[in-house]
Amino acid sequence: MDVPNEARADAETAPGLERDMPNCSIARTLEIVGEKWTILILREVWYGSSRFGDFERVLGCPRNLLATRLRKLVEEGVLATEKYKEPGTRSRPKCVITPEGIDLVPAVIGLMRWGDRHCSAPDGSPLLMRHHACGAHVEVRLRCLEGHPVPVEELDRVPGPGFRTKPVERDG
Amino acid sequence: MDVPNEARADAETAPGLERDMPNCSIARTLEIVGEKWTILILREVWYGSSRFGDFERVLGCPRNLLATRLRKLVEEGVLATEKYKEPGTRSRPKCVITPEGIDLVPAVIGLMRWGDRHCSAPDGSPLLMRHHACGAHVEVRLRCLEGHPVPVEELDRVPGPGFRTKPVERDG
Repeated sequence: MDVPNEARADAETAPGLERDMPNCSIARTLEIVGEKWTILILREVWYGSSRFGDFERVLGCPRNLLATRLRKLVEEGVLATEKYKEPGTRSRPKCVITPEGIDLVPAVIGLMRWGDRHCSAPDGSPLLMRHHACGAHVEVRLRCLEGHPVPVEELDRVPGPGFRTKPVERDG
Repeated sequence: MDVPNEARADAETAPGLERDMPNCSIARTLEIVGEKWTILILREVWYGSSRFGDFERVLGCPRNLLATRLRKLVEEGVLATEKYKEPGTRSRPKCVITPEGIDLVPAVIGLMRWGDRHCSAPDGSPLLMRHHACGAHVEVRLRCLEGHPVPVEELDRVPGPGFRTKPVERDG
Protein backbone atom coordinates (compact mmCIF):
# COMPACT_ATOMS: atom_id res chain seq x y z
CA MET A 1 0.00 0.00 0.00
CA ASP A 2 1.52 3.24 -1.13
CA VAL A 3 0.83 5.91 1.50
CA PRO A 4 2.96 9.05 1.61
CA ASN A 5 4.94 9.19 4.87
CA GLU A 6 4.12 12.81 5.51
CA ALA A 7 0.51 12.59 4.39
CA ARG A 8 -1.92 14.34 6.67
CA ALA A 9 -5.61 13.65 6.41
CA ASP A 10 -6.67 17.20 7.12
CA ALA A 11 -10.06 18.61 6.33
CA GLU A 12 -8.66 19.97 3.12
CA THR A 13 -6.07 17.66 1.73
CA ALA A 14 -5.19 19.78 -1.25
CA PRO A 15 -6.46 23.11 -2.54
CA GLY A 16 -10.06 22.67 -3.62
CA LEU A 17 -10.43 19.17 -2.15
CA GLU A 18 -11.73 17.88 1.16
CA ARG A 19 -12.43 14.56 2.83
CA ASP A 20 -15.48 12.77 1.50
CA MET A 21 -17.33 12.86 4.82
CA PRO A 22 -19.60 9.81 4.58
CA ASN A 23 -16.54 7.74 3.64
CA CYS A 24 -15.55 7.41 7.25
CA SER A 25 -15.51 4.30 9.42
CA ILE A 26 -16.79 6.28 12.41
CA ALA A 27 -19.78 7.47 10.34
CA ARG A 28 -20.45 3.94 9.05
CA THR A 29 -20.40 2.52 12.56
CA LEU A 30 -22.68 5.30 13.79
CA GLU A 31 -25.22 4.43 11.09
CA ILE A 32 -25.61 1.12 12.93
CA VAL A 33 -25.03 1.98 16.61
CA GLY A 34 -24.99 5.77 16.83
CA GLU A 35 -28.04 5.98 19.02
CA LYS A 36 -28.60 5.61 22.75
CA TRP A 37 -31.09 2.72 22.88
CA THR A 38 -29.10 0.69 20.38
CA ILE A 39 -26.00 0.75 22.54
CA LEU A 40 -28.03 0.07 25.68
CA ILE A 41 -29.62 -3.00 24.04
CA LEU A 42 -26.13 -4.22 23.13
CA ARG A 43 -25.09 -3.62 26.74
CA GLU A 44 -27.98 -5.73 28.03
CA VAL A 45 -27.23 -8.64 25.73
CA TRP A 46 -23.53 -8.45 26.57
CA TYR A 47 -24.51 -8.49 30.26
CA GLY A 48 -26.44 -11.72 29.66
CA SER A 49 -30.03 -10.64 29.04
CA SER A 50 -31.65 -12.33 26.08
CA ARG A 51 -35.39 -11.71 26.11
CA PHE A 52 -37.36 -8.81 24.68
CA GLY A 53 -39.44 -8.54 27.84
CA ASP A 54 -36.31 -8.08 29.94
CA PHE A 55 -34.93 -5.38 27.63
CA GLU A 56 -38.27 -3.60 27.78
CA ARG A 57 -38.48 -3.72 31.56
CA VAL A 58 -34.87 -2.83 32.34
CA LEU A 59 -34.42 -0.11 29.70
CA GLY A 60 -37.87 1.46 29.85
CA CYS A 61 -37.60 1.99 26.09
CA PRO A 62 -40.90 2.32 24.19
CA ARG A 63 -41.81 -1.07 22.80
CA ASN A 64 -41.98 -0.20 19.09
CA LEU A 65 -38.70 1.67 19.22
CA LEU A 66 -37.07 -1.21 21.07
CA ALA A 67 -38.27 -3.66 18.41
CA THR A 68 -36.94 -1.45 15.61
CA ARG A 69 -33.53 -1.02 17.20
CA LEU A 70 -33.24 -4.70 18.01
CA ARG A 71 -34.18 -5.67 14.45
CA LYS A 72 -31.44 -3.39 13.10
CA LEU A 73 -28.80 -4.91 15.36
CA VAL A 74 -29.80 -8.37 14.15
CA GLU A 75 -29.85 -7.28 10.49
CA GLU A 76 -26.36 -5.86 10.87
CA GLY A 77 -25.06 -9.02 12.50
CA VAL A 78 -24.22 -7.42 15.85
CA LEU A 79 -26.82 -9.61 17.60
CA ALA A 80 -28.46 -12.85 16.54
CA THR A 81 -31.71 -14.49 17.50
CA GLU A 82 -32.10 -18.10 18.51
CA LYS A 83 -35.14 -20.06 19.52
CA TYR A 84 -35.42 -21.51 22.96
CA LYS A 85 -38.12 -23.63 24.41
CA GLU A 86 -38.80 -24.40 28.02
CA PRO A 87 -40.74 -27.58 28.69
CA GLY A 88 -44.48 -27.02 28.41
CA THR A 89 -44.18 -23.64 26.70
CA ARG A 90 -44.02 -22.52 23.09
CA SER A 91 -40.71 -21.71 21.54
CA ARG A 92 -39.60 -18.09 22.06
CA PRO A 93 -36.87 -16.03 20.47
CA LYS A 94 -33.85 -15.13 22.48
CA CYS A 95 -31.14 -12.74 21.59
CA VAL A 96 -27.40 -13.41 21.75
CA ILE A 97 -24.32 -11.35 20.99
CA THR A 98 -22.28 -12.32 17.94
CA PRO A 99 -18.48 -12.09 17.48
CA GLU A 100 -19.14 -8.85 15.58
CA GLY A 101 -21.04 -7.56 18.60
CA ILE A 102 -18.30 -8.65 20.99
CA ASP A 103 -15.90 -6.66 18.81
CA LEU A 104 -17.81 -3.49 19.74
CA VAL A 105 -17.43 -4.05 23.47
CA PRO A 106 -14.05 -2.27 23.87
CA ALA A 107 -15.60 0.91 22.43
CA VAL A 108 -18.58 0.52 24.78
CA ILE A 109 -16.22 0.07 27.73
CA GLY A 110 -14.47 3.24 26.56
CA LEU A 111 -17.81 5.04 26.91
CA MET A 112 -18.32 3.44 30.32
CA ARG A 113 -14.93 4.51 31.65
CA TRP A 114 -15.45 8.04 30.34
CA GLY A 115 -18.75 8.13 32.19
CA ASP A 116 -17.01 6.84 35.33
CA ARG A 117 -14.49 9.69 35.13
CA HIS A 118 -16.63 12.58 33.93
CA CYS A 119 -20.28 11.98 34.76
CA SER A 120 -19.80 12.35 38.51
CA ALA A 121 -21.78 9.44 39.87
CA PRO A 122 -21.85 10.56 43.53
CA ASP A 123 -20.77 7.22 44.97
CA GLY A 124 -18.28 6.27 42.30
CA SER A 125 -18.33 3.74 39.49
CA PRO A 126 -21.40 1.52 39.35
CA LEU A 127 -19.41 -1.31 37.77
CA LEU A 128 -15.77 -2.30 37.82
CA MET A 129 -14.14 -4.24 34.99
CA ARG A 130 -11.67 -6.83 36.25
CA HIS A 131 -9.42 -9.28 34.45
CA HIS A 132 -10.75 -12.74 35.29
CA ALA A 133 -7.30 -14.31 35.30
CA CYS A 134 -5.62 -11.94 37.76
CA GLY A 135 -8.34 -9.72 39.25
CA ALA A 136 -6.68 -6.49 38.17
CA HIS A 137 -8.71 -3.53 36.94
CA VAL A 138 -9.14 -3.31 33.15
CA GLU A 139 -8.80 -0.13 31.11
CA VAL A 140 -9.23 0.84 27.45
CA ARG A 141 -5.89 1.87 25.99
CA LEU A 142 -4.45 3.02 22.71
CA ARG A 143 -1.36 0.96 21.91
CA CYS A 144 0.74 0.67 18.81
CA LEU A 145 1.74 -2.66 17.31
CA GLU A 146 5.27 -2.09 18.67
CA GLY A 147 3.71 -2.28 22.15
CA HIS A 148 3.95 1.40 23.09
CA PRO A 149 1.13 3.14 24.94
CA VAL A 150 -0.05 6.02 22.73
CA PRO A 151 -1.59 9.21 24.14
CA VAL A 152 -4.22 10.72 21.86
CA GLU A 153 -1.87 13.65 21.18
CA GLU A 154 0.68 11.24 19.66
CA LEU A 155 -1.66 9.88 17.01
CA ASP A 156 -1.07 10.63 13.36
CA ARG A 157 -3.99 10.25 11.03
CA VAL A 158 -2.78 9.05 7.66
CA PRO A 159 -4.90 8.45 4.56
CA GLY A 160 -5.59 4.75 4.12
CA PRO A 161 -6.29 2.78 0.98
CA GLY A 162 -9.96 3.74 1.15
CA PHE A 163 -9.35 7.47 1.55
CA ARG A 164 -11.34 9.64 -0.84
CA THR A 165 -11.61 13.33 -1.47
CA LYS A 166 -14.21 15.40 -3.22
CA PRO A 167 -14.21 18.95 -4.58
CA VAL A 168 -14.96 21.60 -1.97
CA GLU A 169 -18.35 23.21 -2.51
CA ARG A 170 -18.02 26.93 -1.94
CA ASP A 171 -20.76 29.55 -1.80
CA GLY A 172 -20.73 32.28 -4.44
CA MET B 1 -13.46 -0.76 49.10
CA ASP B 2 -15.22 -3.87 50.18
CA VAL B 3 -16.36 -5.76 47.07
CA PRO B 4 -17.11 -9.47 47.29
CA ASN B 5 -14.62 -11.46 45.20
CA GLU B 6 -17.27 -13.59 43.59
CA ALA B 7 -19.79 -10.79 43.12
CA ARG B 8 -21.45 -10.81 39.75
CA ALA B 9 -23.35 -7.79 38.54
CA ASP B 10 -26.04 -9.76 36.79
CA ALA B 11 -29.36 -8.37 35.75
CA GLU B 12 -30.85 -9.71 38.95
CA THR B 13 -28.34 -9.47 41.72
CA ALA B 14 -30.52 -11.08 44.34
CA PRO B 15 -34.05 -12.41 44.32
CA GLY B 16 -36.44 -9.51 43.75
CA LEU B 17 -33.67 -7.00 42.94
CA GLU B 18 -32.15 -5.80 39.69
CA ARG B 19 -29.63 -3.23 38.52
CA ASP B 20 -30.89 0.34 38.66
CA MET B 21 -30.58 0.90 34.92
CA PRO B 22 -30.05 4.66 34.68
CA ASN B 23 -27.26 4.30 37.25
CA CYS B 24 -24.82 3.23 34.57
CA SER B 25 -21.79 5.06 33.26
CA ILE B 26 -22.54 3.92 29.71
CA ALA B 27 -26.05 5.41 29.97
CA ARG B 28 -24.69 8.66 31.46
CA THR B 29 -22.17 9.03 28.66
CA LEU B 30 -24.83 8.29 26.06
CA GLU B 31 -26.99 11.10 27.46
CA ILE B 32 -24.22 13.41 26.27
CA VAL B 33 -22.81 11.74 23.15
CA GLY B 34 -25.19 8.91 22.28
CA GLU B 35 -26.21 10.39 18.96
CA LYS B 36 -24.64 10.34 15.52
CA TRP B 37 -24.17 14.07 14.82
CA THR B 38 -22.74 14.69 18.28
CA ILE B 39 -19.94 12.19 17.75
CA LEU B 40 -19.33 13.44 14.21
CA ILE B 41 -18.98 17.03 15.50
CA LEU B 42 -16.48 15.77 18.09
CA ARG B 43 -14.64 13.99 15.27
CA GLU B 44 -14.42 17.19 13.24
CA VAL B 45 -13.06 19.24 16.12
CA TRP B 46 -10.57 16.48 16.99
CA TYR B 47 -9.50 16.49 13.33
CA GLY B 48 -8.80 20.22 13.59
CA SER B 49 -11.95 21.94 12.33
CA SER B 50 -13.11 24.79 14.52
CA ARG B 51 -15.76 26.79 12.72
CA PHE B 52 -19.50 26.28 12.58
CA GLY B 53 -19.55 26.88 8.84
CA ASP B 54 -17.04 24.08 8.29
CA PHE B 55 -19.01 21.62 10.44
CA GLU B 56 -22.15 22.52 8.49
CA ARG B 57 -20.50 22.05 5.12
CA VAL B 58 -18.58 18.86 5.87
CA LEU B 59 -21.28 17.08 7.89
CA GLY B 60 -24.34 18.20 5.94
CA CYS B 61 -26.19 18.33 9.25
CA PRO B 62 -29.25 20.62 9.40
CA ARG B 63 -28.17 23.95 10.82
CA ASN B 64 -30.49 24.10 13.85
CA LEU B 65 -29.70 20.53 14.85
CA LEU B 66 -25.99 21.21 14.48
CA ALA B 67 -26.26 24.28 16.73
CA THR B 68 -28.17 22.30 19.37
CA ARG B 69 -25.69 19.43 19.41
CA LEU B 70 -22.71 21.77 19.51
CA ARG B 71 -24.23 23.73 22.38
CA LYS B 72 -24.68 20.53 24.38
CA LEU B 73 -21.07 19.45 23.84
CA VAL B 74 -19.92 22.87 25.09
CA GLU B 75 -22.30 22.78 28.09
CA GLU B 76 -20.96 19.35 29.03
CA GLY B 77 -17.36 20.49 28.77
CA VAL B 78 -16.43 18.16 25.90
CA LEU B 79 -15.77 21.14 23.61
CA ALA B 80 -15.08 24.79 24.40
CA THR B 81 -15.54 27.97 22.42
CA GLU B 82 -12.92 30.66 22.01
CA LYS B 83 -13.01 33.91 20.14
CA TYR B 84 -10.69 34.47 17.26
CA LYS B 85 -10.25 37.53 15.15
CA GLU B 86 -8.55 37.84 11.81
CA PRO B 87 -7.32 41.31 10.94
CA GLY B 88 -10.04 43.43 9.40
CA THR B 89 -12.89 41.11 10.42
CA ARG B 90 -15.11 40.90 13.46
CA SER B 91 -14.34 38.41 16.16
CA ARG B 92 -15.88 34.97 15.56
CA PRO B 93 -16.30 31.95 17.80
CA LYS B 94 -14.19 28.93 17.21
CA CYS B 95 -14.52 25.56 18.76
CA VAL B 96 -11.76 23.55 20.42
CA ILE B 97 -11.61 20.15 22.07
CA THR B 98 -11.08 20.05 25.82
CA PRO B 99 -9.15 17.47 27.87
CA GLU B 100 -12.53 15.88 28.65
CA GLY B 101 -13.21 15.64 24.91
CA ILE B 102 -9.76 14.18 24.24
CA ASP B 103 -10.60 11.56 26.85
CA LEU B 104 -13.44 10.35 24.61
CA VAL B 105 -11.19 9.82 21.61
CA PRO B 106 -10.16 6.23 22.43
CA ALA B 107 -13.83 5.19 22.43
CA VAL B 108 -14.33 7.02 19.12
CA ILE B 109 -11.29 5.24 17.67
CA GLY B 110 -12.86 2.00 18.87
CA LEU B 111 -15.91 2.84 16.76
CA MET B 112 -13.64 3.71 13.83
CA ARG B 113 -11.72 0.44 13.98
CA TRP B 114 -14.95 -1.54 14.25
CA GLY B 115 -16.18 0.24 11.15
CA ASP B 116 -12.89 -0.55 9.39
CA ARG B 117 -13.35 -4.25 10.18
CA HIS B 118 -17.08 -4.71 9.75
CA CYS B 119 -18.52 -2.02 7.50
CA SER B 120 -16.81 -3.30 4.38
CA ALA B 121 -15.48 -0.11 2.81
CA PRO B 122 -14.64 -1.54 -0.63
CA ASP B 123 -11.15 -0.10 -0.81
CA GLY B 124 -10.20 -0.58 2.83
CA SER B 125 -9.78 1.81 5.74
CA PRO B 126 -10.24 5.49 4.89
CA LEU B 127 -7.85 6.51 7.68
CA LEU B 128 -4.98 4.82 9.43
CA MET B 129 -3.98 5.66 12.99
CA ARG B 130 -0.21 5.67 13.46
CA HIS B 131 1.98 6.29 16.48
CA HIS B 132 3.84 9.53 15.79
CA ALA B 133 6.97 8.39 17.61
CA CYS B 134 7.51 5.10 15.75
CA GLY B 135 5.06 5.01 12.83
CA ALA B 136 3.42 1.78 13.92
CA HIS B 137 -0.30 1.19 13.55
CA VAL B 138 -2.40 2.01 16.65
CA GLU B 139 -5.19 -0.14 18.02
CA VAL B 140 -7.72 0.10 20.86
CA ARG B 141 -7.02 -2.58 23.44
CA LEU B 142 -8.37 -3.79 26.75
CA ARG B 143 -5.49 -4.18 29.18
CA CYS B 144 -5.42 -4.80 32.89
CA LEU B 145 -3.27 -2.77 35.27
CA GLU B 146 -0.91 -5.77 35.54
CA GLY B 147 -0.18 -5.25 31.83
CA HIS B 148 -2.07 -8.24 30.44
CA PRO B 149 -4.10 -7.98 27.24
CA VAL B 150 -7.69 -8.88 28.12
CA PRO B 151 -10.10 -10.43 25.63
CA VAL B 152 -13.70 -9.38 26.17
CA GLU B 153 -14.53 -12.94 27.28
CA GLU B 154 -12.07 -12.60 30.18
CA LEU B 155 -13.76 -9.57 31.72
CA ASP B 156 -15.51 -9.85 35.04
CA ARG B 157 -18.07 -7.21 35.86
CA VAL B 158 -18.03 -6.51 39.57
CA PRO B 159 -20.30 -4.11 41.46
CA GLY B 160 -18.44 -0.89 42.22
CA PRO B 161 -18.96 1.59 45.03
CA GLY B 162 -21.73 3.30 43.07
CA PHE B 163 -23.65 0.10 42.32
CA ARG B 164 -27.35 0.29 43.15
CA THR B 165 -30.24 -2.09 42.88
CA LYS B 166 -33.94 -1.56 42.89
CA PRO B 167 -36.90 -3.89 43.42
CA VAL B 168 -37.95 -5.80 40.31
CA GLU B 169 -41.30 -4.59 38.98
CA ARG B 170 -43.32 -7.60 37.95
CA ASP B 171 -46.65 -7.70 36.15
CA GLY B 172 -49.62 -9.21 38.00
